[in-house]
Amino acid sequence: MVQADAPRMTVEEFQALFERCSNWGRWGPDDERGTLNLITPEQTKRAAALVREGVTVSCAWPLNTEVDVENRMPATHLMLRAGDVVAEVETSSTADYLALAPHGQAHSHLDALCHVAWKGKIYNNRPVSVVTSMGALKNAITIGQNGIVTRGVLLDIPALNNVEWLEPGTPILPENLEAAESAEGLRVGEGDVLLVRTGRHRRRQEHGPWNASELLAGLHYTCAPWLRERGVALLGCDGVSDYRPHNVEGVRLPIHTLTLAAMGMQLLDNQNLEELAQACASRRRWEFLLTIAPLRLEKGTGCAVNPIAVF
Amino acid sequence: MVQADAPRMTVEEFQALFERCSNWGRWGPDDERGTLNLITPEQTKRAAALVREGVTVSCAWPLNTEVDVENRMPATHLMLRAGDVVAEVETSSTADYLALAPHGQAHSHLDALCHVAWKGKIYNNRPVSVVTSMGALKNAITIGQNGIVTRGVLLDIPALNNVEWLEPGTPILPENLEAAESAEGLRVGEGDVLLVRTGRHRRRQEHGPWNASELLAGLHYTCAPWLRERGVALLGCDGVSDYRPHNVEGVRLPIHTLTLAAMGMQLLDNQNLEELAQACASRRRWEFLLTIAPLRLEKGTGCAVNPIAVF
Amino acid sequence: MVQADAPRMTVEEFQALFERCSNWGRWGPDDERGTLNLITPEQTKRAAALVREGVTVSCAWPLNTEVDVENRMPATHLMLRAGDVVAEVETSSTADYLALAPHGQAHSHLDALCHVAWKGKIYNNRPVSVVTSMGALKNAITIGQNGIVTRGVLLDIPALNNVEWLEPGTPILPENLEAAESAEGLRVGEGDVLLVRTGRHRRRQEHGPWNASELLAGLHYTCAPWLRERGVALLGCDGVSDYRPHNVEGVRLPIHTLTLAAMGMQLLDNQNLEELAQACASRRRWEFLLTIAPLRLEKGTGCAVNPIAVF
Amino acid sequence: MVQADAPRMTVEEFQALFERCSNWGRWGPDDERGTLNLITPEQTKRAAALVREGVTVSCAWPLNTEVDVENRMPATHLMLRAGDVVAEVETSSTADYLALAPHGQAHSHLDALCHVAWKGKIYNNRPVSVVTSMGALKNAITIGQNGIVTRGVLLDIPALNNVEWLEPGTPILPENLEAAESAEGLRVGEGDVLLVRTGRHRRRQEHGPWNASELLAGLHYTCAPWLRERGVALLGCDGVSDYRPHNVEGVRLPIHTLTLAAMGMQLLDNQNLEELAQACASRRRWEFLLTIAPLRLEKGTGCAVNPIAVF
Repeated sequence: MVQADAPRMTVEEFQALFERCSNWGRWGPDDERGTLNLITPEQTKRAAALVREGVTVSCAWPLNTEVDVENRMPATHLMLRAGDVVAEVETSSTADYLALAPHGQAHSHLDALCHVAWKGKIYNNRPVSVVTSMGALKNAITIGQNGIVTRGVLLDIPALNNVEWLEPGTPILPENLEAAESAEGLRVGEGDVLLVRTGRHRRRQEHGPWNASELLAGLHYTCAPWLRERGVALLGCDGVSDYRPHNVEGVRLPIHTLTLAAMGMQLLDNQNLEELAQACASRRRWEFLLTIAPLRLEKGTGCAVNPIAVF
Repeated sequence: MVQADAPRMTVEEFQALFERCSNWGRWGPDDERGTLNLITPEQTKRAAALVREGVTVSCAWPLNTEVDVENRMPATHLMLRAGDVVAEVETSSTADYLALAPHGQAHSHLDALCHVAWKGKIYNNRPVSVVTSMGALKNAITIGQNGIVTRGVLLDIPALNNVEWLEPGTPILPENLEAAESAEGLRVGEGDVLLVRTGRHRRRQEHGPWNASELLAGLHYTCAPWLRERGVALLGCDGVSDYRPHNVEGVRLPIHTLTLAAMGMQLLDNQNLEELAQACASRRRWEFLLTIAPLRLEKGTGCAVNPIAVF
Repeated sequence: MVQADAPRMTVEEFQALFERCSNWGRWGPDDERGTLNLITPEQTKRAAALVREGVTVSCAWPLNTEVDVENRMPATHLMLRAGDVVAEVETSSTADYLALAPHGQAHSHLDALCHVAWKGKIYNNRPVSVVTSMGALKNAITIGQNGIVTRGVLLDIPALNNVEWLEPGTPILPENLEAAESAEGLRVGEGDVLLVRTGRHRRRQEHGPWNASELLAGLHYTCAPWLRERGVALLGCDGVSDYRPHNVEGVRLPIHTLTLAAMGMQLLDNQNLEELAQACASRRRWEFLLTIAPLRLEKGTGCAVNPIAVF
Repeated sequence: MVQADAPRMTVEEFQALFERCSNWGRWGPDDERGTLNLITPEQTKRAAALVREGVTVSCAWPLNTEVDVENRMPATHLMLRAGDVVAEVETSSTADYLALAPHGQAHSHLDALCHVAWKGKIYNNRPVSVVTSMGALKNAITIGQNGIVTRGVLLDIPALNNVEWLEPGTPILPENLEAAESAEGLRVGEGDVLLVRTGRHRRRQEHGPWNASELLAGLHYTCAPWLRERGVALLGCDGVSDYRPHNVEGVRLPIHTLTLAAMGMQLLDNQNLEELAQACASRRRWEFLLTIAPLRLEKGTGCAVNPIAVF
């Protein structure tokens, strides 16, 4: 799609793109909700009306407790009490413990707006120093604590070309997004959660895991203005939305930076879009009610979530 | 409500009640879903039709990281990287870590069917030894991994008597549940998530925390057959559904035992029903779409959740 | 001992005291070892010669996993695999997991020199910002990673007056330290680890735990110049060395500040000095070989330790 | 050394070897200390007399927080408060948090006697079920809580042949141990901690980490009776004492099984013997005072430790 020898974008050019995409001040100087502001009760109500069958599909993977090349910070799941502990009464109970660093390539999670800074600033012109060693004083994961309930749209990019996955490293362009819209007969609009499938996990299923921090399909930075124009409320991907390696100087993750920091748009990383893609394809319908319910983790920078699509 | 000098129930009597409530074998010998089987796609679809305004309300409390008399296993929320870490590129990212033992009186959580055993058995006649020190091989939290999306009904018991809360120790009887149904103009039915408000947190707000493991309002054990008869799919409470102290010998938590172990009905403990109660009262409508999305924690005995009500 | 109505020390007076005690620059501008420099091989060799019987005594308490009024951050000890997990071979193995925030009133631990700052500076004039959210880049616990092996001296203050403990809130003055020296027939000297017993845990044993962050016996700030003059290498206490409440304005813990930040002297907090005091008294000998072996936790601010006295 | 095509040992033959090495009952039916019983005060006293210079050397590696092929359960080191948190007073403090599963190929740790079972039994004929999901009720790490202070002896096997390391997979035989004794001019005896160097980390330094759970140099099972005969109190290695792959059927780790389960001899795994080997070689002296101070972790199966050698 994008040529490998495309000219590199300079930091100055990226800065201009950042400013073009910026929503700083758009909802006032105190705003912390960013593009969640685009999900109005009316949007939520219309999304609920998409439920025709009552079938639910998870967009998360099981929490991964095993190290592999993708999972350098595995979840820790341990028991406090198992069935071997004899109770002093007829009833006994078991209990467990979970520890998780959600931002990792193997965990399905939601990024808060404090997760990425650009030139020392996070969304809405706040210094990154508000993200202290005791937690984020601003732009925390709690902006979605009453639930994110709106229309979800899946754009299945590999399906466009009848392939099972995009090769790692492939950038997705706005024209690819629009081609998927056409193929699916819908248009991404204001207040939507946009889920973009690259087929990453189909490939993983076939060829095993690889180091996704080096090589991954995802959105080219030119998609950022497109996302803003369409009024997308939240972006999700089976990868991390960004493609790698990319050709922007001095920026680790261009899409992360343009969404989280410039637009105030949260990201769903490492989603499970396989069952969802099948559910959509079999119905020839790529829109659904989507509910995301991050834990109420005050000052949190992210959270493992299990987004549920309802058809 | 129940007299303090009511005769104690013996273990034998409780055993008979257990058998009367039992759903073991009802959905086959291999069933692990229990009363989630009562939530059909039709139920989910009809629940979605309850959305009239698109307003969402969380039923969880913020994760509690501070020790108090109720919170003996506080959540641990720590930063992996805060805003003080200078990036080698223009973008920098922050990240955090969360550790949690969800079964505690201060955490809003969902209990899996493996959480409580009666006479060495968990739901559907499985030995509690299937809950190993490496996790629950059966009846784990994953039975709800595609989301629990159905009608939620709030029965606000203190509102019946125009009080702000039930005094700790008060048992709720089936007749109280039915009085609330009448007052609210609805009937709890098959596939519903029933949320019962005792006003615990209003009292806490007024008088501070107390040791809820000793003194708590909740459902009397005679409510168990009622729950089964109505076809409730899942029970939630601002307490832990049980009242304390109770008058059943040799049983730690009668309602926990009758729901989780006998009926195969999961429980939502320590829910935040304050905003929900206000949302219901102001609309004079105590039913809503409810979505619960436990993390996909394989072999888990429970999970912190953030149930979202949609009006 | 010190009168309750003693005039409060002002911040300015404390600053002067801080400067008087300061070892900044004493071992060069790059030094991170502070008063560990006073433990020479010769000191270590002479300390080994104190071993006459080969009897060893721990100066730590068991790691405390239960919440109480003193223990707001309990240790987490969980199993990865217990004996219920059947092996596929004749041998099977069990394993566990420990999580700990060592700085707490219930854990026997060693404080690193980065643990306390005064006016934004830690030992040897370093800005506290070197203690980043990813760990301490300077003055970390690793300065003792090859072991701290030297003479230990116990000054048993309650024994002076034939009481079992000092009442919480009691300050210990230099004259009390010297009276204990006389009574025990020794003199604290260069390179020693000085352990000061207040009898805190005898009182706890008798009356139960209390909130030691508000009320605790310990050293008066006038002991700081005394410690420096004697060349103490490391200070330990069954409390936290400081007494509370104290009468210095604007300073949370005067002794912590004067030792860690000014002198570069590490602290052992919450030590178990009960068995040690008995071992000393029964031998009429309050000096011994002491070994402290902090885990090699790079960038760590402290570490649970189990100091071992050898008689 | 041992031929690759040596005949495999059967489970029955191993059982006979196990019985030959067994110390079950040797110190009574209630004993939990195993070969620590061999460290008498006299041994400790004589070991202290080995200190001639007062030079200390750590036998541990830094705690490893990064995943690699050897480190599948990295330590978690996080900050509770860093230097970015402004205090309300002139003093501020920083603090951290450490979580660790000590039994792993990358962590220097001490194995408790409950760590390995043979045919369902741990040391002294106890059923492995005493190691519950809430911790080990017997044979826990606390047997060494007053410190393990005795003579340490390093047998440097690669030095025998003037090589830097033994190739992974190489078994060490009793004759190799004795050859090292001769070369070093000493004899391993009762109450000693025996440290065996294979050069694993020199190789790692040169060639990078490899999967040590598959390929590792270590002691052949014929060393077990030798260890027992000599009265070794504790065995340590820069590997895990066992070599891999080995040729005993149905046994995961023969040396682990024969020491921990049969003899009641604790193991030090993954020690740092590089500085120690240099310290010994430069002095032409391979004996020293060794102190090991496991944290007082009640019911623990093991503990990260930092053994300190004193010359």
